[in-house]
Amino acid sequence: MDDIRALVFDVFGTVVDWRSGVARDVRRLLPGVDAEAFADAWRGRYVPSMERVRRGELPWTSLDELHRASLDELLAELGLPDVSESVRTELVLAWHRLDPWPDSVGGLTRLKARYVIASLSNGNVALLVDMAKHGRLPWDTVLSAELFGHYKPDPEVYDGAARLLGLPPERVLMVAAHTSDLAAARARGLRTAYVHRPGEHGPVTAPPPKTDPEADVSVASLPELATHLGA
Amino acid sequence: MDDIRALVFDVFGTVVDWRSGVARDVRRLLPGVDAEAFADAWRGRYVPSMERVRRGELPWTSLDELHRASLDELLAELGLPDVSESVRTELVLAWHRLDPWPDSVGGLTRLKARYVIASLSNGNVALLVDMAKHGRLPWDTVLSAELFGHYKPDPEVYDGAARLLGLPPERVLMVAAHTSDLAAARARGLRTAYVHRPGEHGPVTAPPPKTDPEADVSVASLPELATHLGA
Repeated sequence: MDDIRALVFDVFGTVVDWRSGVARDVRRLLPGVDAEAFADAWRGRYVPSMERVRRGELPWTSLDELHRASLDELLAELGLPDVSESVRTELVLAWHRLDPWPDSVGGLTRLKARYVIASLSNGNVALLVDMAKHGRLPWDTVLSAELFGHYKPDPEVYDGAARLLGLPPERVLMVAAHTSDLAAARARGLRTAYVHRPGEHGPVTAPPPKTDPEADVSVASLPELATHLGA
Repeated sequence: MDDIRALVFDVFGTVVDWRSGVARDVRRLLPGVDAEAFADAWRGRYVPSMERVRRGELPWTSLDELHRASLDELLAELGLPDVSESVRTELVLAWHRLDPWPDSVGGLTRLKARYVIASLSNGNVALLVDMAKHGRLPWDTVLSAELFGHYKPDPEVYDGAARLLGLPPERVLMVAAHTSDLAAARARGLRTAYVHRPGEHGPVTAPPPKTDPEADVSVASLPELATHLGA
């Protein structure tokens, strides 16, 4: 791993805790709704909505727009058609102000001293910029699927990140809590680091594996990754 | 200006001192050459080389690649054809490690506390990321002509910046030391701030105007801009 120059990070679940953050705003804005179940159901529509873009059934649509469309569907299904426009707008912005996991900022700050660090998320640029300001994530720059007009795990996203950073893919380390993201990055020549985030889906779900045997390294936190990389 | 949410900055000349930085590396790498004259001659090829891309005579070509091509031309003209490949590569990287003007980091840090701050430069992303790490420029994100496949002052760059930031153009303030950049931003609906940088072209050249009467505000430094904007 001595040649690594830049680290690119999945964000939702890897760097920030989307479930608690979304549930917090649901509790505030939709009283009486099971906030965690709502967050899970909303997030459950994330992959299918992106798949429609990835398959070409929809033109490029930002994650904010996909979140809004799936929110409208979910509210209709739950028999809540009267939720106001302003509440819907605020709920979509919940994804802009998710809190980092407790170890994220400390780990990123150490890594930034030695490496270029950037997001590489399906979130749109404005979402990621707002989130970084909210959570004080010290990115050197924000990289987003939006810049490439493709969602992960399309190869254009991983190729595009290396190209914009001016590096061959083997000098870029993709960091994620999801083995599928890492597998797609590896297929494009990036190095990979797996982060075990057992709390991503809450306390009841079967936790993710502790390690990814295919990754170059598996860790339980970003400070552990920094230590592993000598940062 | 109460509605301004994001500030986007021209970089070469506005935030960093390209002439001193390039001359420093020319002195180190090309002994015996008049370093300031070389920096001026190299920079003098910048606009004409971009114009070839803007007119469609060249496909998209990054600023690093334009710098390399104009360096090769300049060395040939100066009768220095034997400069090695490694020295040429190092000289192109001089543009990645330019120092900020003395007031830049302090002003940007104050502005960042209240606004989204981003570069909006013709430099490529890798150049701008390296420069930010070198000079500790605290960008929320790096925006570059490279993301849009167009060089300033093409309208796609200003339109694209507002789009990626998720803002209508009138909520974005373009900050630059060059009236032509500000005029092009204004034509796309952005607000504009002029920064007087009398040292950009060295001590001998006729200095730029102290103010831009067409801009929303003219200042002599980034801290002065922060004070003007209440940051």
